Amino acid sequence: MKGLWLEAGQFSYRDDLPMPQAREGELLIRTLCSGICGTDLELQRGYYDFSGIAGHEFVGEVISDGELAGQRIVADINIGCGRCSFCVRGLNNHCPTRKVIGIKGHAGAFAEFLTVPERNVFRIPDSLSNHQAVLVEPVAAALEILEQVPVDKQSHVLIIGAGRLGTLIANVLASAGLEVEIQVRNPLRLKYFENPSIKAIENFKHSHYPLVIECTGQPSGFSSALQAVMPRGTIVMKSTYASELNLDASYVVVNEISLMGSRCGPTDKAIQWMQENNTEWLEMSTHRFEEVDLAFEQAKDPSIYKVLFSNEESTD
Amino acid sequence: MKGLWLEAGQFSYRDDLPMPQAREGELLIRTLCSGICGTDLELQRGYYDFSGIAGHEFVGEVISDGELAGQRIVADINIGCGRCSFCVRGLNNHCPTRKVIGIKGHAGAFAEFLTVPERNVFRIPDSLSNHQAVLVEPVAAALEILEQVPVDKQSHVLIIGAGRLGTLIANVLASAGLEVEIQVRNPLRLKYFENPSIKAIENFKHSHYPLVIECTGQPSGFSSALQAVMPRGTIVMKSTYASELNLDASYVVVNEISLMGSRCGPTDKAIQWMQENNTEWLEMSTHRFEEVDLAFEQAKDPSIYKVLFSNEESTD
Repeated sequence: MKGLWLEAGQFSYRDDLPMPQAREGELLIRTLCSGICGTDLELQRGYYDFSGIAGHEFVGEVISDGELAGQRIVADINIGCGRCSFCVRGLNNHCPTRKVIGIKGHAGAFAEFLTVPERNVFRIPDSLSNHQAVLVEPVAAALEILEQVPVDKQSHVLIIGAGRLGTLIANVLASAGLEVEIQVRNPLRLKYFENPSIKAIENFKHSHYPLVIECTGQPSGFSSALQAVMPRGTIVMKSTYASELNLDASYVVVNEISLMGSRCGPTDKAIQWMQENNTEWLEMSTHRFEEVDLAFEQAKDPSIYKVLFSNEESTD
Repeated sequence: MKGLWLEAGQFSYRDDLPMPQAREGELLIRTLCSGICGTDLELQRGYYDFSGIAGHEFVGEVISDGELAGQRIVADINIGCGRCSFCVRGLNNHCPTRKVIGIKGHAGAFAEFLTVPERNVFRIPDSLSNHQAVLVEPVAAALEILEQVPVDKQSHVLIIGAGRLGTLIANVLASAGLEVEIQVRNPLRLKYFENPSIKAIENFKHSHYPLVIECTGQPSGFSSALQAVMPRGTIVMKSTYASELNLDASYVVVNEISLMGSRCGPTDKAIQWMQENNTEWLEMSTHRFEEVDLAFEQAKDPSIYKVLFSNEESTD
């Protein structure tokens, strides 16, 4: 089959990849559309120890026989053991022996086909296009904030980092009724913040925000978050960091600040959110697997919201 | 008056300190008993920019005329402006222009007399001895954990650091129904953990505890806390740190760990807790101000729970 092979930080187009074989409890999926995410750029930089077929933001069609045959689906990317104390509580993303589709121990969606455990699969309603469905995974990650932080008490929030995830987070939190400010350094990004309840700002107020979302993954972004959060406030950390952070822990203690790591979120709620909220205005650029170099080049261009690989006959 | 003068990290006995003058809204207090706390040892090491009369754990008697004349009292040590957005919410410990008795901008209780704003004062019931009342401030700091963390969902907790604050925290959390483990490195400390619901341990289990309380203020203690906390768990940081911490922020994000700074707590609830819980077994050593050198020497001895200065005729 066609697809991209990642080795030593290099994504290469190949047309001779072996077809994946669905094992017990797994479904064979034909990829319809898969997106390049920040984590994929980190795989390219060699931040993770993964070689093989990456790709974890995707929508596909079930090829296997059975109840779901022919259905469009997305998947929870965390494959837990199903038996540990985390899995039994539905926290398969914290299973100590988990695999993660396209990131750790399980081939992903940068190829014509992949396999997915049936219990990880969610049907996509007809009302959602492939371009919307491919955003279910990052929307779920944005919704995770609402699972972790009791936002009803928060009047306003600052987002540091107007990248792809930051953009979705701004829209998700605005839809939850929060007053959202987002620090936008690159004017090419301004077009993504036309929602009147989202205010794109250049400079934030110090010690002002009860809730700050850090999505840069950069020490400078974390440092801004600490400056912006008010005493007793919360910083949600959405991005991983390439190296250790220097933390002024005494400042955190004296000001009773909470730092909260936040990762993957609820897929079912993300599908529901996508149905209730319009994301069609987010600009996508679609490529075939053969155009891998151009695609990854564009993925670094801040004026394009998301770069996708399409596996359909006519790229839409 | 008699008392201790702190300058350049040196506590010296003086008998010629000027009597403090109560300003509007303040009461003149005669110190009955004041305790040496970890923060005082840090003042001695020069970690804070404070010179003058320190001492913030104390019980005193109101000398000023009025409703409270002759009463035994303790005080909330944070003196807020009374007008900012924090003060109006009762969070005077986060007032940006606050003073802190014996720590910042306001003379403390290592002297025969001090002044305290009337609104910071809490009456001590007759049923509590001076040796109990002097612990109200650290008990309040321990109770602050219960204000910040929803502990009803937490089955067990690990405390790192079996010092004076850690000991009180263990007892406070055990009284709230939690299963408490505390890492005790010094066998001289073991006698403080005879409560059957507190388990003194040498080695903790990795990635096991939903709640970990870090009270060492040491990078090694923080590192142990990160090893001990389970994914989605919370580390409460009770101690300040002499320098910056190196934080593996990616580990915090991927495991969705919360780090929560925690400081001063509710004085009223601490007085109530002291009435309902026996702390008479905690060994105290009492000195006169003249014995300052011996007192601060003993304050470093882990076999003595707390070193006090007594300002009464007969040291009790």
